[in-house]
Amino acid sequence: MKLYGDNLSGNCYKVNLVASILGIPLEKVSMNILRGDTRTLEFLQKNPNGKIPILELADGRNLSESNAIVNFLARESELIPQDPFDLAKTQEWQFFEQYSHEPNIAVARFINKYLGLPEERRVEFESKQEGGHKALRVMEEQLSRTQFLVGNHFSVADISLFAYTHVANEGGFDLIPYPRISEWLKSIESIPGFIRMEGF
Amino acid sequence: MKLYGDNLSGNCYKVNLVASILGIPLEKVSMNILRGDTRTLEFLQKNPNGKIPILELADGRNLSESNAIVNFLARESELIPQDPFDLAKTQEWQFFEQYSHEPNIAVARFINKYLGLPEERRVEFESKQEGGHKALRVMEEQLSRTQFLVGNHFSVADISLFAYTHVANEGGFDLIPYPRISEWLKSIESIPGFIRMEGF
Repeated sequence: MKLYGDNLSGNCYKVNLVASILGIPLEKVSMNILRGDTRTLEFLQKNPNGKIPILELADGRNLSESNAIVNFLARESELIPQDPFDLAKTQEWQFFEQYSHEPNIAVARFINKYLGLPEERRVEFESKQEGGHKALRVMEEQLSRTQFLVGNHFSVADISLFAYTHVANEGGFDLIPYPRISEWLKSIESIPGFIRMEGF
Repeated sequence: MKLYGDNLSGNCYKVNLVASILGIPLEKVSMNILRGDTRTLEFLQKNPNGKIPILELADGRNLSESNAIVNFLARESELIPQDPFDLAKTQEWQFFEQYSHEPNIAVARFINKYLGLPEERRVEFESKQEGGHKALRVMEEQLSRTQFLVGNHFSVADISLFAYTHVANEGGFDLIPYPRISEWLKSIESIPGFIRMEGF
């Protein structure tokens, strides 16, 4: 299987991380979104929404949306809970990530790290801080009650939320007020197969 | 099971719709977000993220995020594909919905319909139009190739995308340029158990 992605995107990193933990080999295809690689006709045929990551199967079929890819790769592993309620909770966290976490923390990081915090986007950057901290508080509250996001077992929910949380500082989010998140980040770094945010 | 929601939210409607199609009885608890019902201490204990819908199980456990609730209720039904790739595709559409569709179409509708398009939010309202039409084009492209969003079988993906697409006009999105979407909307209205956007 091929993974189209880049080294800066936490969404691509989620897929790399779950594949590494599960020992699934992926052929990496490096994309440069600032150069327009995701807006070519060829790429838009793979994903009409024009976003990375994309997983391309051996038969040519494509799958987009990072969390859907993570769940697909992990489908027969212990990273997906068997219990129906716990399974629903992993999805709850993943939808939370895409709606309440990523649009604040990852977008603030994008403006700061990819674009160099240009003056014309400073208001937008600052507008992301409140929502980002709200998302971090929701995580901190959960991690004060359980070791991982869904009970005491490491799951796809942790992989999906780790990706942008561990680089939240690059979006202007200081994690010192979140001791449980900081512990949780460290605990994930010691999971066998853990890799850093690179690989393309 | 109890469902906390309101009549205006497409996210709540998704849950009502899947429960009606599957014949699952839900006790409805009506919430008024403009009055602050989702910001009370009692509600925040159910969902620290302060959002509806919430599904409360008989044992008191809570589940949030509309698409996670839809998938939980439908978990043993034909609305969830058995094939792993098709299952991943339903999730791909649901994450697309929460990231690329809802933040444009539902938020434009919220500003227009809930708030009465106040002058101070007109720029934001207008900024949602381009992204909303992009999301509609992605759907139109898929529905020109398959009867439903994932192949030719009605699934949770269709329920999740129907909710805000069928009221997209209330957010300023004319659906006349999208004939496949319009046909698909009509076909869903004839599914046994279909209900309109009400019930709280």
